[in-house]
Amino acid sequence: MPVVKKVHHVALVVADLEAALTFWRDALGIQVAERREVPAEAAEIAFLPLGESELELVRPTAQDTGLARFLQKRGEGMHHLCLEVDDLDGMLQQLRQRGVELINETPRSGADGKRYAFIHPRSAGGVLVELYEVP
Amino acid sequence: MPVVKKVHHVALVVADLEAALTFWRDALGIQVAERREVPAEAAEIAFLPLGESELELVRPTAQDTGLARFLQKRGEGMHHLCLEVDDLDGMLQQLRQRGVELINETPRSGADGKRYAFIHPRSAGGVLVELYEVP
Repeated sequence: MPVVKKVHHVALVVADLEAALTFWRDALGIQVAERREVPAEAAEIAFLPLGESELELVRPTAQDTGLARFLQKRGEGMHHLCLEVDDLDGMLQQLRQRGVELINETPRSGADGKRYAFIHPRSAGGVLVELYEVP
Repeated sequence: MPVVKKVHHVALVVADLEAALTFWRDALGIQVAERREVPAEAAEIAFLPLGESELELVRPTAQDTGLARFLQKRGEGMHHLCLEVDDLDGMLQQLRQRGVELINETPRSGADGKRYAFIHPRSAGGVLVELYEVP
């Protein structure tokens, strides 16, 4: 049976990364491990490790992405919840059998080799859920 | 310096707890440790431990609470992000000095002895942030 291991990250969509960091980094004192542009996602992301998880502050760098539309429609806030699984293919198969609607029917691969897939919020209580398999 | 230690829990607001569990428990396979009514919060809550954190599925049991209004206005989804801190009083003082707006100026205490306070989303990039001090 595929297993959900932990919360990998919570992604927050922000309009202004520097302004967001004045709260998360400067006021709360959570350190930023890395900050980089991710052209494939049309986003600039700050990674803030926190225990075994991570906060990701994500700023859209283009107007025509799902992320940018989310920000325009709902404003800043939590964008998605990423769960780490030990067997992504097995989990996607299990979800399909349960009638869960997937955004990515087959896993996608990030630049860092991690494989991921998104579940549609319609099947996940309104939450955009990402599943990550870390090699 | 007060320190944020980890993501304590991510709280999801749901309209129907049993329906939500068909996804989180049955499809994803995350086990439910406890499920109980919390009259002080006018909510029924299912607690799903996940690594060092927890998912909390929260169903409002009254119509006149912030939680119920959140559900009516925004629908199901992520409600708040709870971070565990080692020194809640120190952290609240630090936040005040940085001009962060608090919902609870002084910590509140739960039935289980945990002390907590909420930060206003206006100061936290649209995220309702709860701070927890676990004794």
